[in-house]
Amino acid sequence: MQEDGFNLLTRVGPGTPMGNLFRRFWLPALLSSEMPEPDGTPVRLRLLSEDLVAFRDTDGKVGIVGAYCPHKLAPLFFGRNEQCGIRCVYHGWKFNVHGECVDIPNIIPPDNFPALKEKARITSYPVREAGGIAWVYMGPQERMPELPAMEWLTLPQKHVHTSRWFHRSNWLQAAEGEIDTSHISFLHSVLNVPEDGPDRHRLARDGAPQIEIRDTDYGFVYGARRRFDDRFYWRVTQWMLPMWSAIPGGTDEFIGAGRAWVPIDDYHTTAFAYQYRPERPLSAAEVKEIDAGGQFPPRSTKGATQLPHGYVIDTFLPSANQGNDYLIDRMAQRKESFTGIWGVNEQDRALQECMPSLPGEQPGIVDRRGEHLVKSDLPTMFARRKLTKLVRELAEGKEPVAAMQSEQYGLRAIAKVSSIADFDEFMRVHGEEGKAGVAPGSRGAVAASAVQ
Amino acid sequence: MQEDGFNLLTRVGPGTPMGNLFRRFWLPALLSSEMPEPDGTPVRLRLLSEDLVAFRDTDGKVGIVGAYCPHKLAPLFFGRNEQCGIRCVYHGWKFNVHGECVDIPNIIPPDNFPALKEKARITSYPVREAGGIAWVYMGPQERMPELPAMEWLTLPQKHVHTSRWFHRSNWLQAAEGEIDTSHISFLHSVLNVPEDGPDRHRLARDGAPQIEIRDTDYGFVYGARRRFDDRFYWRVTQWMLPMWSAIPGGTDEFIGAGRAWVPIDDYHTTAFAYQYRPERPLSAAEVKEIDAGGQFPPRSTKGATQLPHGYVIDTFLPSANQGNDYLIDRMAQRKESFTGIWGVNEQDRALQECMPSLPGEQPGIVDRRGEHLVKSDLPTMFARRKLTKLVRELAEGKEPVAAMQSEQYGLRAIAKVSSIADFDEFMRVHGEEGKAGVAPGSRGAVAASAVQ
Amino acid sequence: MQEDGFNLLTRVGPGTPMGNLFRRFWLPALLSSEMPEPDGTPVRLRLLSEDLVAFRDTDGKVGIVGAYCPHKLAPLFFGRNEQCGIRCVYHGWKFNVHGECVDIPNIIPPDNFPALKEKARITSYPVREAGGIAWVYMGPQERMPELPAMEWLTLPQKHVHTSRWFHRSNWLQAAEGEIDTSHISFLHSVLNVPEDGPDRHRLARDGAPQIEIRDTDYGFVYGARRRFDDRFYWRVTQWMLPMWSAIPGGTDEFIGAGRAWVPIDDYHTTAFAYQYRPERPLSAAEVKEIDAGGQFPPRSTKGATQLPHGYVIDTFLPSANQGNDYLIDRMAQRKESFTGIWGVNEQDRALQECMPSLPGEQPGIVDRRGEHLVKSDLPTMFARRKLTKLVRELAEGKEPVAAMQSEQYGLRAIAKVSSIADFDEFMRVHGEEGKAGVAPGSRGAVAASAVQ
Repeated sequence: MQEDGFNLLTRVGPGTPMGNLFRRFWLPALLSSEMPEPDGTPVRLRLLSEDLVAFRDTDGKVGIVGAYCPHKLAPLFFGRNEQCGIRCVYHGWKFNVHGECVDIPNIIPPDNFPALKEKARITSYPVREAGGIAWVYMGPQERMPELPAMEWLTLPQKHVHTSRWFHRSNWLQAAEGEIDTSHISFLHSVLNVPEDGPDRHRLARDGAPQIEIRDTDYGFVYGARRRFDDRFYWRVTQWMLPMWSAIPGGTDEFIGAGRAWVPIDDYHTTAFAYQYRPERPLSAAEVKEIDAGGQFPPRSTKGATQLPHGYVIDTFLPSANQGNDYLIDRMAQRKESFTGIWGVNEQDRALQECMPSLPGEQPGIVDRRGEHLVKSDLPTMFARRKLTKLVRELAEGKEPVAAMQSEQYGLRAIAKVSSIADFDEFMRVHGEEGKAGVAPGSRGAVAASAVQ
Repeated sequence: MQEDGFNLLTRVGPGTPMGNLFRRFWLPALLSSEMPEPDGTPVRLRLLSEDLVAFRDTDGKVGIVGAYCPHKLAPLFFGRNEQCGIRCVYHGWKFNVHGECVDIPNIIPPDNFPALKEKARITSYPVREAGGIAWVYMGPQERMPELPAMEWLTLPQKHVHTSRWFHRSNWLQAAEGEIDTSHISFLHSVLNVPEDGPDRHRLARDGAPQIEIRDTDYGFVYGARRRFDDRFYWRVTQWMLPMWSAIPGGTDEFIGAGRAWVPIDDYHTTAFAYQYRPERPLSAAEVKEIDAGGQFPPRSTKGATQLPHGYVIDTFLPSANQGNDYLIDRMAQRKESFTGIWGVNEQDRALQECMPSLPGEQPGIVDRRGEHLVKSDLPTMFARRKLTKLVRELAEGKEPVAAMQSEQYGLRAIAKVSSIADFDEFMRVHGEEGKAGVAPGSRGAVAASAVQ
Repeated sequence: MQEDGFNLLTRVGPGTPMGNLFRRFWLPALLSSEMPEPDGTPVRLRLLSEDLVAFRDTDGKVGIVGAYCPHKLAPLFFGRNEQCGIRCVYHGWKFNVHGECVDIPNIIPPDNFPALKEKARITSYPVREAGGIAWVYMGPQERMPELPAMEWLTLPQKHVHTSRWFHRSNWLQAAEGEIDTSHISFLHSVLNVPEDGPDRHRLARDGAPQIEIRDTDYGFVYGARRRFDDRFYWRVTQWMLPMWSAIPGGTDEFIGAGRAWVPIDDYHTTAFAYQYRPERPLSAAEVKEIDAGGQFPPRSTKGATQLPHGYVIDTFLPSANQGNDYLIDRMAQRKESFTGIWGVNEQDRALQECMPSLPGEQPGIVDRRGEHLVKSDLPTMFARRKLTKLVRELAEGKEPVAAMQSEQYGLRAIAKVSSIADFDEFMRVHGEEGKAGVAPGSRGAVAASAVQ
């Protein structure tokens, strides 16, 4: 793929082809818990290079609207969130969650007041809350799909853990890390695993998995087969448009997990992770382990970050970052783990955030001209090709099918030890477990298969 | 006004049309108190995008000169301020307050020594001290006007309080806030004002004042009429070229105040405020209240700031700033004041410094393409048109009249409760109070009226 | 010299003419002590605008290689330095000190595995260790010269002190400070030297030395003659390509010293200093004095710095810097020293790092258009002309002679009080002392004279 191709996929601002593709899907925008109460503090966002502000109004409805008052362009973040609207503190103009200007109190209402207020309407995007997340749809109204019917969105709150954090790179190099199965045998591995220890510590030791991919409407599914004693350790991962990936969990009991990479702009990403148990609430110990940062998310502080173009956004800043070398412990690197970096996300970020940047602009987009992809990168290559195709088709007026088929998203990644060597055979036997609600013991309905 | 027009007014560097207009006027440069003693520490400045250094020489004279030694371009800030000149510490070259090179000690004087020294002359601008401020004139020598005959410049030192601080935006969006009377009814208002409380808490509650403007040689004067019980609360403000505004004070006893917005460069401003009592010294309580930061200036620390282009300047950095959300208190916003931000200047800066910036350059200039001006913005529109006209005329060789009529600046803003409804009628009755020295009880001379 | 000429000398990235000249010479890259043990922590470097990483392998050999793994461009700094190579922690690819890819463990070796590994070779530059420094040669293999035969490189370790630090400017304005003899009479002078004190405090008081220059193959040599009582204080300095300068030491007993200015990129420099005694180890007191920072190097902390383009490098950050005005003490400037800045290097950096920068790019390259060179700047002018000539010749295919004559670098600067007034006469009498090994009492071999 030429350099052009990467610009095609990495640039997400208004009017860009990839930005347009993102704008066909519901995107996680922020956690519902960031807006715990009606009329509370607004939250600053930047999504797809647009400056926005989110607020929960008096009725509990969430608005995600343009960040600035259209009068004199004062920031609405400082505004008063009151009586079903956000009121700019400069001159008191007020806007509801739909972006409608509902008050202009610093003039005597002229004859054309309705028209004036209509002109003063601000950008507003539809918002839905599900799975502990406020979702936003930034595309054309008439193309608005349903929320993706992911299993975790349908579960009781206590079954699901959702989180977000700030990822200091372009979205694509982060997302590519999720469909790169071989790296878990290295980056996330520990040293000195005893041969007689539990299987799960040894499952992914084969660093050169065999990979097979099948195209689907929702994206693609791929199977990675690792040698494990005299059998195989299979990991089957769904990559769902525009940038979701399901993460295979336990081989015995299903553990749901996945991540989304939502572009703040071309150089920054807000990442979301979910983990869930379909059958039962997460235990206190499980929640504690997640929040401790060893798995996901990283240990973060909610804070405010000024981006180079001057807009301040509210972020969850990981405490391990480039400024402290991700707290790498070189002694631990020799004795305990492959990296000496604690935390799966810290390991990923250390590499993805420190790749060489495209020259001549702010850091964040990896300069892919130097890369040498190999067989283990088949899913990455497949994803790039598929995105490129969809982006080009959309530019020619062909809407992405996946966006219209939310029911396709009811998927589960599969992790399994098996003696089956062939992927198609494996999927014939185990494929149904990749559909939400069909795990052993499940009582849920079976979603239609998406694997072609 | 098109985008072009805004570039015309926001760009102030050498050779720009607006920069040229600024260079026709005396500008506040720094506080005299920053150079308390002869031969003291130099002060770094940047004005109209020029790097400068100010120093008070052995005789007490202030020089404002180019920041770099013309020999090898070492920064004169580190220089020795001694024996009526500043001496570069790199090779000992020395310059007096006029920018004349008076010593080149690292060579044996050649035959052409006088010519060599003449070639080594550095930029130097005329300086005057008045009102606790060192003023600079950066224009053509032959066009140098008198200092503006502002009332506070003629008063004993103890009658006047002057201050300066760092404003992190282009000068124009800051200056426009000063001629925007309606915002005081919102941005600077407090909540829950009792109906039976003192008038001054209720005077400006009418957020939709009627505004009338009259063009003048010095700029313009505008009157804002607010309903107040069964009478009117009038505020009459003079906007004086190039960017001064007088602030209406008490309705009973005259309180003088005003502000100037001096461009550091296109992205930063050094603001000056004055407050004064013509008849008497400011009381200790008044000074204490001003210095506490509730009115003006903000609570600041004198410190050094590196600008993006590498030059360090001495600034008064407000402690409430974008990095701490101007210390907004959301509980106070609900219960006590419209913003929850403490301090009038903090309230202004929160909005003006956080407006959306023009893309593709460093933050600081608001991208006005999104704004929707309404009737309350008449003075802003008037100021833009007037500045545009003057800038264009100057480019065609027509000098600004105001710069040549310093006596016009002897003006007082007027705040008054009256039953007069018509602005011209109001000015016929009260206009004389807008001239320095004619407040009730005044014994001073009356300056010539500037209102046309 | 026109502006073009300065771009010719200040730009050092790959493909630039001056960058090419630098690439013909061995350059100090880092201190050997930064890699104290085999398989230790890698060190991040940036040299001539190339991002690199240095590591000492299991056998003690030092590799300086490209900073990123060629697979997915993960930073090798986080890599595992083990078993004679650095292994990327993303997918386990491994590289030896020669840049050869010796392991690709995340794929099943294909038939074309040798070719694949050959394609995955990374940039690697030859490294030598001498004088406590790891040297790198970044030029064409077939042009690789010998290490320069500098005296201090041949001495026992305890005779030599080497150091490095971060200099926040382009290399050229730093290097020019080294061949600028007159500045020591000002910038580095102390006040109130008693007339009856030791000679060494008064030697350089004549700030207008007479300067004579002689061209040489290795660069040039210049003599600076200062009046000293009824005799002359001579300082003879060799400037050695591409940017070395020897520093004249004691007049009685020879003290060796010199500095190199190695470009990190166009805006940053890593500086190296050496000091040595040919006849004996440095005393503990001498080492302590050097490390205290009064002479060289500055007091620094080894730390990591993110450069504007996003690459983090390991630097020795001086604690006195632009952010704290180099800890200038204005009272000391009045009473004790010419600058009030403590430390010879701090004095140099205060000026060189704070010169006005070229507009339109990041700070660091002085905008020389404003400079006024005089007779004291003859060596600077000579160096610029010589570099320009060599750079242009190299562009036309003519290799620099100096690079091929490492034995020419066996030079000593000379400091001497003498009644001889003529430079050629002085060199006839004392020139041999400028050759390593011929100081009074020396038993070493005499290097061939390089003075033409």
